Amino acid sequence: MSFGVPLGIAGVGLIGGSIALRARERGVEVVGFDRNDASEPLVNRRVNSLQALANECQTIVLALPLDATLLAIDALRSRVHLQLKLVIDVASVKVPIVERAGGWKSFAPSHPIAGTEGSGPQAARSDLFADRVWTYVSTDAQRDEAVRSFIETMGGRPVAIDAREHDRALALTSHLPQVVVCALAALLRDRKPLPDLAGSGLASTLRLAGSSWEVWEPILKANSAALVPALRELGEHLSGVAEELEAGTLERTASYFKSAREAYDALVKPRQ
Amino acid sequence: MSFGVPLGIAGVGLIGGSIALRARERGVEVVGFDRNDASEPLVNRRVNSLQALANECQTIVLALPLDATLLAIDALRSRVHLQLKLVIDVASVKVPIVERAGGWKSFAPSHPIAGTEGSGPQAARSDLFADRVWTYVSTDAQRDEAVRSFIETMGGRPVAIDAREHDRALALTSHLPQVVVCALAALLRDRKPLPDLAGSGLASTLRLAGSSWEVWEPILKANSAALVPALRELGEHLSGVAEELEAGTLERTASYFKSAREAYDALVKPRQ
Repeated sequence: MSFGVPLGIAGVGLIGGSIALRARERGVEVVGFDRNDASEPLVNRRVNSLQALANECQTIVLALPLDATLLAIDALRSRVHLQLKLVIDVASVKVPIVERAGGWKSFAPSHPIAGTEGSGPQAARSDLFADRVWTYVSTDAQRDEAVRSFIETMGGRPVAIDAREHDRALALTSHLPQVVVCALAALLRDRKPLPDLAGSGLASTLRLAGSSWEVWEPILKANSAALVPALRELGEHLSGVAEELEAGTLERTASYFKSAREAYDALVKPRQ
Repeated sequence: MSFGVPLGIAGVGLIGGSIALRARERGVEVVGFDRNDASEPLVNRRVNSLQALANECQTIVLALPLDATLLAIDALRSRVHLQLKLVIDVASVKVPIVERAGGWKSFAPSHPIAGTEGSGPQAARSDLFADRVWTYVSTDAQRDEAVRSFIETMGGRPVAIDAREHDRALALTSHLPQVVVCALAALLRDRKPLPDLAGSGLASTLRLAGSSWEVWEPILKANSAALVPALRELGEHLSGVAEELEAGTLERTASYFKSAREAYDALVKPRQ
């Protein structure tokens, strides 16, 4: 990817910082907007406002929490004199983003399926997106081409996806597991079993429990239509196992374990 | 630990095989009883029955599924002429084991808090127990000393624990997470989201989903008294989150995320 102007990144945390590191590895100058001083070493230089970023950069990545991304879209879109070439977001929910961006010609909604258990600029890595799927919502041929090129520069695999389909799938692969893991961890914290009796399996199960509520609150609210039925279904599965254990006949429970094995083979094994 | 006679291991899978590898590293001769031919390379030699094992070895580890462990206790205990010095089990539930063993003088109930996502003899590793807690139920001073010595030879950290307390804690740290992960994985398998949209966080959450139902069925049944209320509570947590999402006020959900962070700091962070 060749940038005629520097790449602007609003939000230099795990995702924005990893984009910054990778871009700089590829010789792209990066301007960052983030109030956290820990983001300083990740960019070539920092500016103090989104407006200053937009004044300097014709390509901008919005790597902000969902609610801040929506505000940034409003702010940038109204400044028509800026002639921004490409504004890409990376939020975990796409329908509200697409709706907010409306027909804005410079905007491309995307979402990299990448992360680590760390967060913030300290956890940024230039290879975070290496061989990872990076979804984008197709808009028009020229923008799609620019987005694919950007994603490939990041080391990712661009995959076009419908916004609604993305959100329905992420409700299952990301938002539901996040809530479940947090509810489980909260229950453990209340019941206080001896830490000595927690093994590496539990540590793996609870890896997501360190995530920040500030990041997750707007995601859960935005995707509640897809998330609520899945939460109810899983809650019923758990009560069902409890009933079966009391009755002493574990048919449904056995079927969960057997289906789980198939999901493991499809979703976990390929990553080992 | 010095064995005057070879160490006998009934069940040369992940745990039994790892015990075998570690013992042999320490110069102990190991005799195994396991019908799986893949266990052959892990032991010095194999025998064809539990009885043959007991004829040759005065120290025996029962590294079998829970139900098979209970049967083996019955079988060995009745053969009083054997003069077994020490029989140790490693099952994940301790109350039924203690009850079954009654006052049997040679028997020591134990449970290593160690595992990997693999299973079977292929997954065995001589360092599986290195620095891991290995719980045991205290019986008498002489047996406790022998058990602690055995656990230390395995590289583990011996921790004495009450059987009932062990089972209540494991219901939370192991059995509940196992059921939750399997129910979640089964739901994902039924709803079939695109595998492209499953990230490394989900892979971590579902790591336990590859476990075998044959191993887990007797554990869940044996520990149902502790497991059932925890399953019901978690099921209610999930329905509660669904209700809050519909109502648009996420107070309890926020508290789960904040408590989860504390559990993460206590249980996950120390293992990173």
